[in-house]
Amino acid sequence: MMNWLKRFLIGKPLENEALKHEKYSVFWGLPILASDPISSVAYATEEILLVLVPAIGVLAFHPLTWISGAIVMLLAILTFSYRQTIKAYPSGGGAYIVASDNLGQYAGVIAGSALALDYILTVAVSIAAGTAAITALFPALFQHRVAICLVILVFLFIGNLRGIRESAKIFGLPTYAFILSVLALIITGIIKVKVLGYVPPTPVIHLKSVIEPITILLILRAFASGCTALTGVEAVSNAVPNFREPTTKHARSVLLLLSIFVFILFVGISLLANLFHVVPIEGKTVLSQIAAEVFGSRNVMYYFFQFATTLILALAANTAFADFPMLFSVMSRDGYAPRQLSFRGERLSFSNGIVVLTLVAGLLLVLFKGDTHRLIPLYAVGVFISFTLSQFGMFIKWTRSKEKGWVYKAVINGTGAIVTFVTVIIIGSTKFIHGAWIIIVVIPILMAIMMKIKKHYMAVATQLKLQPEELETLDLSKATYRNHVIVPIESVNKASVRALRYAKTISDNVVAFNIAINEEAEVKFKEKWNFLHTDIPLIVKYSPYRKVVSPLLDFIDSYEEHNYTRGDMITVILSQFSVRAWWQVFLHNQSRFFIMRELLKHKHIVIATMPLQLKNDEVVLKQKCRR
Amino acid sequence: MMNWLKRFLIGKPLENEALKHEKYSVFWGLPILASDPISSVAYATEEILLVLVPAIGVLAFHPLTWISGAIVMLLAILTFSYRQTIKAYPSGGGAYIVASDNLGQYAGVIAGSALALDYILTVAVSIAAGTAAITALFPALFQHRVAICLVILVFLFIGNLRGIRESAKIFGLPTYAFILSVLALIITGIIKVKVLGYVPPTPVIHLKSVIEPITILLILRAFASGCTALTGVEAVSNAVPNFREPTTKHARSVLLLLSIFVFILFVGISLLANLFHVVPIEGKTVLSQIAAEVFGSRNVMYYFFQFATTLILALAANTAFADFPMLFSVMSRDGYAPRQLSFRGERLSFSNGIVVLTLVAGLLLVLFKGDTHRLIPLYAVGVFISFTLSQFGMFIKWTRSKEKGWVYKAVINGTGAIVTFVTVIIIGSTKFIHGAWIIIVVIPILMAIMMKIKKHYMAVATQLKLQPEELETLDLSKATYRNHVIVPIESVNKASVRALRYAKTISDNVVAFNIAINEEAEVKFKEKWNFLHTDIPLIVKYSPYRKVVSPLLDFIDSYEEHNYTRGDMITVILSQFSVRAWWQVFLHNQSRFFIMRELLKHKHIVIATMPLQLKNDEVVLKQKCRR
Repeated sequence: MMNWLKRFLIGKPLENEALKHEKYSVFWGLPILASDPISSVAYATEEILLVLVPAIGVLAFHPLTWISGAIVMLLAILTFSYRQTIKAYPSGGGAYIVASDNLGQYAGVIAGSALALDYILTVAVSIAAGTAAITALFPALFQHRVAICLVILVFLFIGNLRGIRESAKIFGLPTYAFILSVLALIITGIIKVKVLGYVPPTPVIHLKSVIEPITILLILRAFASGCTALTGVEAVSNAVPNFREPTTKHARSVLLLLSIFVFILFVGISLLANLFHVVPIEGKTVLSQIAAEVFGSRNVMYYFFQFATTLILALAANTAFADFPMLFSVMSRDGYAPRQLSFRGERLSFSNGIVVLTLVAGLLLVLFKGDTHRLIPLYAVGVFISFTLSQFGMFIKWTRSKEKGWVYKAVINGTGAIVTFVTVIIIGSTKFIHGAWIIIVVIPILMAIMMKIKKHYMAVATQLKLQPEELETLDLSKATYRNHVIVPIESVNKASVRALRYAKTISDNVVAFNIAINEEAEVKFKEKWNFLHTDIPLIVKYSPYRKVVSPLLDFIDSYEEHNYTRGDMITVILSQFSVRAWWQVFLHNQSRFFIMRELLKHKHIVIATMPLQLKNDEVVLKQKCRR
Repeated sequence: MMNWLKRFLIGKPLENEALKHEKYSVFWGLPILASDPISSVAYATEEILLVLVPAIGVLAFHPLTWISGAIVMLLAILTFSYRQTIKAYPSGGGAYIVASDNLGQYAGVIAGSALALDYILTVAVSIAAGTAAITALFPALFQHRVAICLVILVFLFIGNLRGIRESAKIFGLPTYAFILSVLALIITGIIKVKVLGYVPPTPVIHLKSVIEPITILLILRAFASGCTALTGVEAVSNAVPNFREPTTKHARSVLLLLSIFVFILFVGISLLANLFHVVPIEGKTVLSQIAAEVFGSRNVMYYFFQFATTLILALAANTAFADFPMLFSVMSRDGYAPRQLSFRGERLSFSNGIVVLTLVAGLLLVLFKGDTHRLIPLYAVGVFISFTLSQFGMFIKWTRSKEKGWVYKAVINGTGAIVTFVTVIIIGSTKFIHGAWIIIVVIPILMAIMMKIKKHYMAVATQLKLQPEELETLDLSKATYRNHVIVPIESVNKASVRALRYAKTISDNVVAFNIAINEEAEVKFKEKWNFLHTDIPLIVKYSPYRKVVSPLLDFIDSYEEHNYTRGDMITVILSQFSVRAWWQVFLHNQSRFFIMRELLKHKHIVIATMPLQLKNDEVVLKQKCRR
């Protein structure tokens, strides 16, 4: 039943070979990778206005144009920078790899932590914004927005466990639908105002108090909010090997295309906001207000547009579902994350990473009540930290390599590094109290955890490594030490005879061991033991506190004093009943687990577990009666 | 820390020998065993009035006298009956044992289930009634009564885990204090009305509707409620071996004493209720109202009396804490209950039984909101079922044995059986819809479970039993079959070399086994393997779905086809890392558990677990740097 459900939701297991076919073309790769930055236009303009409007009212639309321009400039710089990264790292040049390669492991781990948080927030913010697009359409759903967020999250979770290729098919169409419908919105809107002379209604604005002066701080805060439009630009460089051959060329094309789209859509929406004087209202997104103005709030185009917005935002969240597990699989291969994160599941996706991402993003959505605006201040800091480290890493790379044309390349990446670093400072300081502090606190914690994990794996590898001198003297052709077998016996029965027989098969040094709680029990046991007519020595220990493990350990200690040579191993044989029905487990003493746990703390003790399959109760008792 | 807390609460472990000293004298045994029936007087009179007063108002006090008389008669019959049981069963003659012995296993299991429910309800009812005595004193606590109940329960739980003897010391005094203070209450009350001519105020009575006629049904319902006064009388016969030598004599004295006390106190309280015309009021127990009238509600004696009531009721609950685990230890030794219930804990108490009792009683207190009156209908049915079976069992015993004076004995126990059986019918029918149906439903369920458990243990014993012909041909002097060893190897390192070396020690048939997820991995692994220069054959299996367990099982199957003789065993060696810090567990693949679970389903496969102690990360890395 559970298995059937799993198959239905996730699909049949895929062979390792299937991995080769799971690659992007430009046409299918663009929607997967471009959806994140492109979908940001659904909330970036609104976030800028949410800073400006309460402070300066309708005057907001003037700086909006300039701020949008600055962000688009930043986008152009990033695009040029990252096209170089793609070329230099054809096997995938995420910030983690570029920073580790050129700036050392600490920079790499910082970049990795920052990116990890970025991906989690991409999921949370995009789903929250996608839900806002739906609730703008159906205000009755506004109170259920957290539930809607979680439903979208679960859909993405299942879709991604199914694997990469199918995701592209499922999620590809909405990106193109969204791009086309925003283009239609922009063109229709401009025609409506400029050609048909439509005069939009004057907005009702609730100022915080009086109109504030336009300060640099205000502009910087608005700029910091708008920078969320650029999150996800780095995803392409990360995913180069996911493309079809020639991977580099395809990836660079996709990056250029997506930048052009972001440019057109972001500038276009900011222009429309300006033309229609739209201001943020709770429950109505800026983009939905524009669309309602342009298409008419009862027009089918308006409904289509809102659905397209939700879908592209879901697709943006999906980007992170591809990137987060991929990042962790790379980091776990380097030893900075638990190794399980580098295992591909039955459908070749990194299932463990997908599970972690879903849980953390779900937690954020619940804690921040699915509110885009409350999540945004956490969002862009991490991204720009990783941008900075990545660009600076590239700069160092060129200055070190001094290959043909290195100065030109270093200037481009150096500019990228400086610009993104300045942006980090702006975002981190202006958004600090609104939530950016969380990221600034969490990154060092994540770093410390990752370094601790790395240390553990290094220590394990060091302990396990065979030294050349060991290999030289190694002789596996015969036994090199003695094996002593201890068989704890509760009572003389088939199980204990079976254990004793096995003991004799693996060693000539066999001792049987019994724990008695009083003299009577000891006498009784020895009587039964004599029926076996065996020369195997029997040791009976008296357990005054009715304990089982410590008398056994005491016996092993005393045994070692007399019979044991350094280097020998001791094997303890434990019988394990395999019951036929779940409830029967509770009818058997589980002391085996305690014994095992304690004994395994001793490196020279091997536990041999002998299974004993119990038959069906009714069948056994019927057979017994027949005899 | 946890250990310290355990020692502080429970005390140091006690040796098996200490059991001998944990015995009752008459003086200390009486409070432990008599507390249950004696404390019942705290609510039995009230329960009778709760049936009568809403129906017939102040007329209630007339039938109260007659009903109390009938119950006292029943008590006398029971006392005589049980004194015979004690004599006949010096090693403990609880209803379970007497019924099993004389009426067969089904009757025994019914009696056992009924008693088990009785003990659970003794705990729940006594604690609820004890809490009512406190809240009558402090009405502000009435809304917190469930919490108070649970606090008392936890105290009893801890006290009983500490062991029997200390419990007697802690709980003995309150019984005597209660007996004396009720005697004082009765004497003072009689003097106040009869000698000093005090006229109690006329009670305010809320009739259900009009005064009903006094029907037989009404009287029987009131009688059924009052029978709760007799619960716990059987405890003495159950606990005979807990007494000091001569056990039988001590136990019989205690039973007689407790009956006399119950007689005096119960009749006395019913008399006072009559004299003072006290009727039940929510939040005020009948006994607390009488005490307030007699002593005066601001008198210190009143406060003392209420506390003494609470304490004796807690002690009554404590009786069940001794009896319930004892009953289950006997039943589990007979195979009707999980074997774990027969193990004595560190302090010689049957800890598992105490835990079960606490959990179920706690659940009842929460479900019935700590309300005595709602729990009462469940209470007496079980007790009287076990009375009936026990008395009937004794009757059969005498008629079978025909020993000297058997007719006299059979008449006494036969009378007991008939009277208690009639009482079962009365209680079961008049209280059916008020809750007795729960017991009537649960007893058969418990019975079915117990029979199922018995069957399982019998089937296991049958399967494990060594047949005489097996013992004759048994030869444990040497190995009688071959042992094949398979060593699954993930990578070539110290752990795998260790496993291979151990394999060579226990067998000459060793095969190494590796799972490759692609050809590259296979080539790489074989290269490393060659460094070992060993003649141990290596099998590499390709796992297309990245699975681990099924390729191993497939390999074992194919291996068996060629190399295996029927009766041989296969040992699979698995390495187990023992980490130094809890979080490191998450850094290692736990596939060993899945492998073990699957392999142990095959009776010819033994799992040898080789421990590998990891050292402290920092220490290892420092040593490495020094080299």
